[in-house]
Amino acid sequence: MVVVVKKGTDEHQLSTLVEWLHSMDITVHRSEGAYDTVLGLIGDTSRIDIDLIEGLGIVDSVTRISEPYKNANRKFHPDGTVIDVGGVKLGGGSLEFMAGPCSVESPQQITSIAEDVKKAGAAFLRGGAFKPRTSPYAFQGMRAEGLELLKLARAQTGMPIVTEIMDLSHLDLFADVDIIQVGARNMQNFELLKELGRCDKPILLKRGLSATMEELLMSAEYIMAGGNSRVILCERGIRTFERYTRNTFDVSAIPLLKEKTHLPVIADPSHAGGIARLVEPLALSAVAAGADGIMIEVHNDPAHALCDGPQALTAPQFAQVVERARAIRAVMCHD
Amino acid sequence: MVVVVKKGTDEHQLSTLVEWLHSMDITVHRSEGAYDTVLGLIGDTSRIDIDLIEGLGIVDSVTRISEPYKNANRKFHPDGTVIDVGGVKLGGGSLEFMAGPCSVESPQQITSIAEDVKKAGAAFLRGGAFKPRTSPYAFQGMRAEGLELLKLARAQTGMPIVTEIMDLSHLDLFADVDIIQVGARNMQNFELLKELGRCDKPILLKRGLSATMEELLMSAEYIMAGGNSRVILCERGIRTFERYTRNTFDVSAIPLLKEKTHLPVIADPSHAGGIARLVEPLALSAVAAGADGIMIEVHNDPAHALCDGPQALTAPQFAQVVERARAIRAVMCHD
Amino acid sequence: MVVVVKKGTDEHQLSTLVEWLHSMDITVHRSEGAYDTVLGLIGDTSRIDIDLIEGLGIVDSVTRISEPYKNANRKFHPDGTVIDVGGVKLGGGSLEFMAGPCSVESPQQITSIAEDVKKAGAAFLRGGAFKPRTSPYAFQGMRAEGLELLKLARAQTGMPIVTEIMDLSHLDLFADVDIIQVGARNMQNFELLKELGRCDKPILLKRGLSATMEELLMSAEYIMAGGNSRVILCERGIRTFERYTRNTFDVSAIPLLKEKTHLPVIADPSHAGGIARLVEPLALSAVAAGADGIMIEVHNDPAHALCDGPQALTAPQFAQVVERARAIRAVMCHD
Amino acid sequence: MVVVVKKGTDEHQLSTLVEWLHSMDITVHRSEGAYDTVLGLIGDTSRIDIDLIEGLGIVDSVTRISEPYKNANRKFHPDGTVIDVGGVKLGGGSLEFMAGPCSVESPQQITSIAEDVKKAGAAFLRGGAFKPRTSPYAFQGMRAEGLELLKLARAQTGMPIVTEIMDLSHLDLFADVDIIQVGARNMQNFELLKELGRCDKPILLKRGLSATMEELLMSAEYIMAGGNSRVILCERGIRTFERYTRNTFDVSAIPLLKEKTHLPVIADPSHAGGIARLVEPLALSAVAAGADGIMIEVHNDPAHALCDGPQALTAPQFAQVVERARAIRAVMCHD
Repeated sequence: MVVVVKKGTDEHQLSTLVEWLHSMDITVHRSEGAYDTVLGLIGDTSRIDIDLIEGLGIVDSVTRISEPYKNANRKFHPDGTVIDVGGVKLGGGSLEFMAGPCSVESPQQITSIAEDVKKAGAAFLRGGAFKPRTSPYAFQGMRAEGLELLKLARAQTGMPIVTEIMDLSHLDLFADVDIIQVGARNMQNFELLKELGRCDKPILLKRGLSATMEELLMSAEYIMAGGNSRVILCERGIRTFERYTRNTFDVSAIPLLKEKTHLPVIADPSHAGGIARLVEPLALSAVAAGADGIMIEVHNDPAHALCDGPQALTAPQFAQVVERARAIRAVMCHD
Repeated sequence: MVVVVKKGTDEHQLSTLVEWLHSMDITVHRSEGAYDTVLGLIGDTSRIDIDLIEGLGIVDSVTRISEPYKNANRKFHPDGTVIDVGGVKLGGGSLEFMAGPCSVESPQQITSIAEDVKKAGAAFLRGGAFKPRTSPYAFQGMRAEGLELLKLARAQTGMPIVTEIMDLSHLDLFADVDIIQVGARNMQNFELLKELGRCDKPILLKRGLSATMEELLMSAEYIMAGGNSRVILCERGIRTFERYTRNTFDVSAIPLLKEKTHLPVIADPSHAGGIARLVEPLALSAVAAGADGIMIEVHNDPAHALCDGPQALTAPQFAQVVERARAIRAVMCHD
Repeated sequence: MVVVVKKGTDEHQLSTLVEWLHSMDITVHRSEGAYDTVLGLIGDTSRIDIDLIEGLGIVDSVTRISEPYKNANRKFHPDGTVIDVGGVKLGGGSLEFMAGPCSVESPQQITSIAEDVKKAGAAFLRGGAFKPRTSPYAFQGMRAEGLELLKLARAQTGMPIVTEIMDLSHLDLFADVDIIQVGARNMQNFELLKELGRCDKPILLKRGLSATMEELLMSAEYIMAGGNSRVILCERGIRTFERYTRNTFDVSAIPLLKEKTHLPVIADPSHAGGIARLVEPLALSAVAAGADGIMIEVHNDPAHALCDGPQALTAPQFAQVVERARAIRAVMCHD
Repeated sequence: MVVVVKKGTDEHQLSTLVEWLHSMDITVHRSEGAYDTVLGLIGDTSRIDIDLIEGLGIVDSVTRISEPYKNANRKFHPDGTVIDVGGVKLGGGSLEFMAGPCSVESPQQITSIAEDVKKAGAAFLRGGAFKPRTSPYAFQGMRAEGLELLKLARAQTGMPIVTEIMDLSHLDLFADVDIIQVGARNMQNFELLKELGRCDKPILLKRGLSATMEELLMSAEYIMAGGNSRVILCERGIRTFERYTRNTFDVSAIPLLKEKTHLPVIADPSHAGGIARLVEPLALSAVAAGADGIMIEVHNDPAHALCDGPQALTAPQFAQVVERARAIRAVMCHD
């Protein structure tokens, strides 16, 4: 960490800062420039609050040189993590698909979609039981009952299930879920992250709408610091000024996150654009950029699909995405 | 709500959409343009999911004409809401100050700051017991013990206390708090909002880092839909590309929110900029823009204040802000 | 265009607005809701200034239903435009590469790179003669001399050349350039756009750092309104809060622009991320999303390349991108 | 400047970088950490292209410690610059108003507004002759004729005039203008900035929609590097995700720019929000935050003002803003 101290800073204040740093086992190298004093901080600076230092009246700027996350950092774990879920592997060069409906609605609906997406190539069944909705007047999901229907679909198809938790008070209900998803709006629900760090399930952590990649990695670090190292990161679009798409899918996050961390990185093209006809191009772009997996909303019954969601594909559309995605992945792996 | 349907849309699909809207008690006026069909939706469209309609393959664009929030909407409640907390009034033309430390640290610290800020003009004592921190390795607050210390300071000074809840499982601990704060990162923690809608305490709801004003109003609506109409909104900066400030303080939100809603609107200049020397200019700008209150971080002991936080003022600095803010408010009210 | 007028609007003001609209040959359909009056505007609304209407005191909101661009609009020109430049076709299903150095530096450098990228599969030679630089102290390009060197390289390799114009006073110098590039910072230099609308050369128009897709299309419309319909659009990243990349490459813009307009759409992965190791993944993601071409910075001499630019590839790296990109394109076109 | 080099970097590449820095008269201090090598660069680093270094394969991150602007930097010119325009002073503690119509339309219109705003307290007359418009179909201003009308109004009222230049080919037409304005879309039109650096008129430089404060300062540096040190900076809102306002007025920019530079800083609340009823609160917030001046759109004839612009005030509304702004300024200056 490099701290630039303002010119003309009172020597007493400066030494108070240096002593405080020493008290945290940080070695401080001081050098004087014409207009500033520069402090080089050496030691475990991940415990130092950069905002706190930045805000001091005597400080001009602070730069972190080593990343503030350790467990998630590829520097310390050069090999990619492979997460095995019921025999299906995420990471390590494979390309897997998670598919299913936005919301679980009925036994018929979820088992029928599950069978369709399995046939089309999905390894995981996704489906919403607890639904985060911007409006209090919108459908909030089938909740506990929805989780039971997902397990039913798993029993019938053998596919592991992925579903979103919205509050840590529901954690017991998720005891038999295969992957617990943390949604974008909960990416910095730190109490939830801490508790998930103590459980023994893989966690699918979605990037928040306005989260930097570093903040996503810090949230993964929260889970890993608790002892749970099976975290899957998911790019799903960030908030920008652009109005033609609901979010701007940040495809660069895929290669960059894979460079910074050893954790698997997947993409959710359905939520990124919020438009069904963008799902295929965004899914394929994510694969071309190196994603380890793709999560896609698929609905069941085209006849009644009118209101099944703006971002959902039909099963045949999904099958085409899988096929093309695999062909692109083959291009990428071929030397 | 106005729905523009694509040219050449299959008539069968179009009537399925119209029938579905009818089934939701929406009247549909249809008009044909040269290149589009336009549907005007009349009725209670607040229950219609705009994203769902927007995502349909046959739809070109959707525009909501009436706001999707009702309880929070000034259209239906033209008079401003005044929230009385232990005799102190928020809204209705007054200008109140909430002040105190970032974190509660000890009985001495919190009671001493409480006395200082009371003398300087604060009506409420704020202080963090549960602290949301980006890094799992940073200090997480004194938690339950911190709440006890806040009550101690209240007993000694008579000031009502404001403090942040981080998870709904802690709600019982907040039974004796005067105003419960929902932080920016929890603005869309919908399970928490619903539960707060069922409690009988005023809620201070901070705008999320990437939340639009409309989303802030929808989150207020979540609380109000549960029966709790005592919600205070707080502008505290949004995330943008600018790097000199931690967040960009959106001063326009103050007059605009006050136009859209009858709820009181306050500002938090400490978190907006993240820099102590910006607190005064931002606080005064918020008052000049019409804020009903200002929340400011104040620390106690200048001698040890070095690491007390980048965004905290000393008590005398806070006193100057209060004095100038009141003088500006007087300018605004004077005809 | 749909205009929502505020409840309780003075009838006189409302009829003034309606008359003014009539005077612009717009038919107005008026309907009354419980809380608003809604005006439906029919006719050529592309000439109406939406900001002007939006800002009227009596207006609550305005929504444009038909796009404000016509010449660029696919609705009116369903077939994709193919731009033929010296026999090379952009648009219409082909995938072409533009490659070359950030700046033209010497005859040896530019001819040697030109030969390298031609061998690797590029159809166009790109290179900067006039360089827009954030700092006045940075190298500003070889300017007119650089243009001459580009023509030299063209003479030697037969490749058409693409280079950026920075000011309309330089237009004469570009008389013999094959494609004139308008950089991101000039995307709304309207005087320049108007003049380019009167010239007979293809224009490569880059999206501004904070330009919406609609604004990019409006800038294309400026050129086309002058009579020059040979415009190529280029996605090159937008400005967001993310700090790991210089810009956020908006891969969704590729399929969306191609849906909205008939013009060819290419991508510039070198400037989007600003990092050489991101060029390949971003280029391939753009191809997977349907781009008609890719523009890439390539440098010549690996031995001295240390400071040749953060975002430039070597010729062999470029050759691999071309090969993989073509294989991905083959996947996309295969049924 | 601090450069962090990746672990395991080839020693040969590293010394090539160090030698290249030496060749630019930069002294390099090297220190080795456990995971990185850190280079401290001492000397005139303003000439070093940070993007270039950042993009090198061997580099992890680069941080500039001293600002890349010198002429504009308050560090080297601690006293605030006062710009005298025909006897009216900008900077140095005064608060001045620039007011007038969006577009110059007729001799009657501009002289009548000029007289109104002068009476209300404006020191400068602003008015658009050349108008940058997003749509090629919108009114583009009276251009040269508009400039003549502004001079007419100046002759009649004695007020110095401020008006926007859109292209450097028009520079001769501006020979008799008092302050030349560079609009947000031209903030990085570097050819224009260079030329304005060689002229002897004060330049009012507006912040670009997506420009950081540092980029605004770098654009001021462009003008100052050419010899013209009379630059006035103007905050006018930045582009964010928020949709209730056209731009987000960044009030923090006022105190921060005034800290970083000695140049006067004014605000344009008309364009920031794009809504007339926001002009007063934003203007007052800017004054409370320390602005040296305020630029406001004022229209003349309320009877025909319906379409005179969403963001324009009437003269009496403007007079109230001036009065309140001065009262707020008095609060700020009073000890």
